[in-house]
Amino acid sequence: MPDNLHIALLHYPAYNKRGEVVATAVANMDIHDIARTARTYEISKYYIVTPIASQRLFVESILAHWRPGGVAGSYNADRSEALKTVFVKKSLAEVVGDIRFCRGREAKLVATGANLAGNLISCADMRRLIGEGKEDYLVLLGTGWGMAQDVIAAADYRLEPISGAGQYNHLSVRAAVAIIIDRLCHGR
Amino acid sequence: MPDNLHIALLHYPAYNKRGEVVATAVANMDIHDIARTARTYEISKYYIVTPIASQRLFVESILAHWRPGGVAGSYNADRSEALKTVFVKKSLAEVVGDIRFCRGREAKLVATGANLAGNLISCADMRRLIGEGKEDYLVLLGTGWGMAQDVIAAADYRLEPISGAGQYNHLSVRAAVAIIIDRLCHGR
Repeated sequence: MPDNLHIALLHYPAYNKRGEVVATAVANMDIHDIARTARTYEISKYYIVTPIASQRLFVESILAHWRPGGVAGSYNADRSEALKTVFVKKSLAEVVGDIRFCRGREAKLVATGANLAGNLISCADMRRLIGEGKEDYLVLLGTGWGMAQDVIAAADYRLEPISGAGQYNHLSVRAAVAIIIDRLCHGR
Repeated sequence: MPDNLHIALLHYPAYNKRGEVVATAVANMDIHDIARTARTYEISKYYIVTPIASQRLFVESILAHWRPGGVAGSYNADRSEALKTVFVKKSLAEVVGDIRFCRGREAKLVATGANLAGNLISCADMRRLIGEGKEDYLVLLGTGWGMAQDVIAAADYRLEPISGAGQYNHLSVRAAVAIIIDRLCHGR
């Protein structure tokens, strides 16, 4: 499956409700749900990114809890398996460095967001690029009220927002990731 | 959008880890995430089904909290809007009765599950049936270790499981619903 596709959930820099740039809190459900989606579609790595040390420790403690041999790892081996895809990093730069180290090339950055407009790439086109295998791609997922504008501006691609039936598109990040990954990877 | 498509999250009858039939606990995140997905794709109604009175009260209290004019409704109007799709019922029979009352016909029941096998309908075929508009469809979503066999056996259709890249398909119900709804409704 696409070993050139990676995803990162960015807790910084993110907007809060008032449009200020903040570090959002890591939600336990985001760790589990997105790891299960990533594992199901055999995404290479799922990075959780936060500059706050105590938040990284929080994620690491959950991963340890579910590790094979950990407290919960023997209770639900499938969950344990999913969480193997999760890696904790302190910045987007660290994620990019990890991909460069593991894959020997720079990842192309793919911004996502419910409000992206302008020069967008469709899921179908992105899917084809990933399938060609000539580049590594890192899909960036926002939290809070979306990722900061400078991250979007620095990305190589901006993915078309997931639209449903009308104007309303306030999906949870857990649902949005599932739909994006399915559109990019289903049937490969 | 498809006013003939409805979804129900069944907390009973469900299997637990040991294969016993139980009523599972309602998870707050299931209320929110699936309501947001339902609202985005303009699903007619999202039913949360549990025979346990205190669990129904729990859901109703969350809905009241987010109602326009409620404590949180003014904080996040988009969330308030999503939760308008949620209806609480005590049994699948009550859900079927509600659809019969509102729509004047029996809904066809569509079972889902990660382990369904045998005589399955593809998402593409299901999508076409919904689009024809000749029937109402109620997509049944399991909790715990899946919905009880007699519910699956009584359904009119069994939807093909969402498969990712390999054998592993332990998606969260929140992610699975998002993918199913996208496959059934995207681009309508």
